Amino acid sequence: MKTSKKHKSALKENEGISPPEITDAFAITKIQKKRQTQPSIEALVNGIFNQNITALSRAITLVESKNANHLEKANQIIKACLPKANNSLRIGITGVPGVGKSTFIEALGKHLTGIGKKVAVLAVDPSSSLTKGSILGDKTRMEDLVNDQNAYIRPSASGDTLGGVARKTRETIILCEAAGFDTIIIETVGVGQSETAVHSMVDFFLLLKLAGAGDELQGIKRGIIEMADAIVINKADGDTIKPAKLAKVEFSRALHLYPEKDSKWTPKVSLCSALKNEGIVSVWDMILEYEKQTKENKFFTTKRSSQNQFWLLQTIEDRLKSNFFEKTIVKSELSKQLKLIEEHKTTPFAAAEYLLNL
Amino acid sequence: MKTSKKHKSALKENEGISPPEITDAFAITKIQKKRQTQPSIEALVNGIFNQNITALSRAITLVESKNANHLEKANQIIKACLPKANNSLRIGITGVPGVGKSTFIEALGKHLTGIGKKVAVLAVDPSSSLTKGSILGDKTRMEDLVNDQNAYIRPSASGDTLGGVARKTRETIILCEAAGFDTIIIETVGVGQSETAVHSMVDFFLLLKLAGAGDELQGIKRGIIEMADAIVINKADGDTIKPAKLAKVEFSRALHLYPEKDSKWTPKVSLCSALKNEGIVSVWDMILEYEKQTKENKFFTTKRSSQNQFWLLQTIEDRLKSNFFEKTIVKSELSKQLKLIEEHKTTPFAAAEYLLNL
Repeated sequence: MKTSKKHKSALKENEGISPPEITDAFAITKIQKKRQTQPSIEALVNGIFNQNITALSRAITLVESKNANHLEKANQIIKACLPKANNSLRIGITGVPGVGKSTFIEALGKHLTGIGKKVAVLAVDPSSSLTKGSILGDKTRMEDLVNDQNAYIRPSASGDTLGGVARKTRETIILCEAAGFDTIIIETVGVGQSETAVHSMVDFFLLLKLAGAGDELQGIKRGIIEMADAIVINKADGDTIKPAKLAKVEFSRALHLYPEKDSKWTPKVSLCSALKNEGIVSVWDMILEYEKQTKENKFFTTKRSSQNQFWLLQTIEDRLKSNFFEKTIVKSELSKQLKLIEEHKTTPFAAAEYLLNL
Repeated sequence: MKTSKKHKSALKENEGISPPEITDAFAITKIQKKRQTQPSIEALVNGIFNQNITALSRAITLVESKNANHLEKANQIIKACLPKANNSLRIGITGVPGVGKSTFIEALGKHLTGIGKKVAVLAVDPSSSLTKGSILGDKTRMEDLVNDQNAYIRPSASGDTLGGVARKTRETIILCEAAGFDTIIIETVGVGQSETAVHSMVDFFLLLKLAGAGDELQGIKRGIIEMADAIVINKADGDTIKPAKLAKVEFSRALHLYPEKDSKWTPKVSLCSALKNEGIVSVWDMILEYEKQTKENKFFTTKRSSQNQFWLLQTIEDRLKSNFFEKTIVKSELSKQLKLIEEHKTTPFAAAEYLLNL
């Protein structure tokens, strides 16, 4: 029973393509044929518009695929979905491992489905491309949310580069929105460059923290505090309430030192206990307040425009760089030039000139 | 008398090339001929090695020139200077206008020449390329330092891009070091991207602040606090001592919230009054302490290596981008694609793909 619950999200995805029992050679041929017969683009798009989870999952699988043929299909599906996208509230949640992100997202997600929202939970996990694990895939903590008809949980896309993972996540957001999900939660671990990527694809960025002794920001990458629209101190229950309140004061003071944000929003610090389901409603109310304020002052749409521009330019830059640095001659000469720089025989600028003229 | 003082740095630079009075046509031809006769590369390099300020200034002018012929000469001079460079302590100083940067640099500079140091003061000014003004050029506040034989003040290089200005400054550092300057101070205004550029070319980064009421970091770009190795609160004298001390406590607390730096150096907050020459010696002692600590733990050289790598990669990226975005077809199609993105008719990724395939 427990196992079936755990794997429900995975099963959902494979629905309709899980092979029946193989009895003879003829059956195998039939299955191979069936596997090759993918639903048409039109069928998938209609499925997404009809909020069919299987169609959504299949389309996301195409988005995540490295197969050029799949990519072409994925692009067509995304294009068809675009007019129905862009209507959700996109929330980024970050925090170091152990801070209780899954429990928090489950509590928030359950609250949202309880008030009639449709919630999609995605993840950007920089380590997954290395470990081939995935931030949500291995976790089985969101059991309640997994079984919630109005929630969709998708493990993080794998990929060789953060840029690739981010692209897939951005496109998955579009598909989820077209499938009627009005709240998109994107989870990431507070390490590496992934927060910057997630920050650049969400409307509201939330940093989950624990009340701890000493260096409150230990383990959190520099700059994350500055990106946060809210710091939520989790596990504020029992004996932890007192240090959590102290941490709240300290964070509020630290946030006060930063200059005003372009959004004119003053980042808030709040306490919660996701496990005990305390403080979750006020976090949501705060997010709604942010949405209201930034929609009124137009920052909401301005931010989405600049995010689009950011991703356009970022994608171009990434490609220009990879095209250049993947050249065999550049690869072999780059290390030589770096050595010459170290030996004070050339400057970084002269070396760059040399490499560009190869 | 005062005027001559003010313009001494400018005069120094033009020494030997200021035209004599023109009396007849023959003389004009002679002057034109003389102007075309630039000193040889060898002469300039020898001049620099012999700590000749005129030679240094002329070489810097070549570095700053946009003339391709000058650039080629400049590159040869820099290459010749490289073996004698890299032996200085490079200090970056930033702060909003009005914080007293010039007064502070003059006080610090005088202290340094007083203890036998040779100090070069350069500037990176992002606005100078727009206004054609320059951060130090228009200022005549460092009168004492200008007249100090062991100090060299060079106004900021102008340029179309921050990258270009930064490059010229980096190369000017090499020339100054080869000319025997053991302390290089690089000044910048606390706006735009210039601090990041300066931070990437110095060993120690100092943020100058005023004690003020309310938002202490108002006007300072996000992220600068995190880059600072020290925050020095200037104008801590008279009635300002009390708020300055309070600001010190507040900044120390804020800095404490950040994770440990790679340098293992804990950023310090200190008070000074540059005008009254108070607290300057302790700032210098702190910088020496930083130098000692980071040379012991090898961070000093590690940082310089990664700065070199940064500038190599940054230069390549800048060039790849400008080569791409300066294409006529890209220029005209980019705005069309941006419009399509805004109208939700394409995605940033599809648009990037389209532009890259033009």
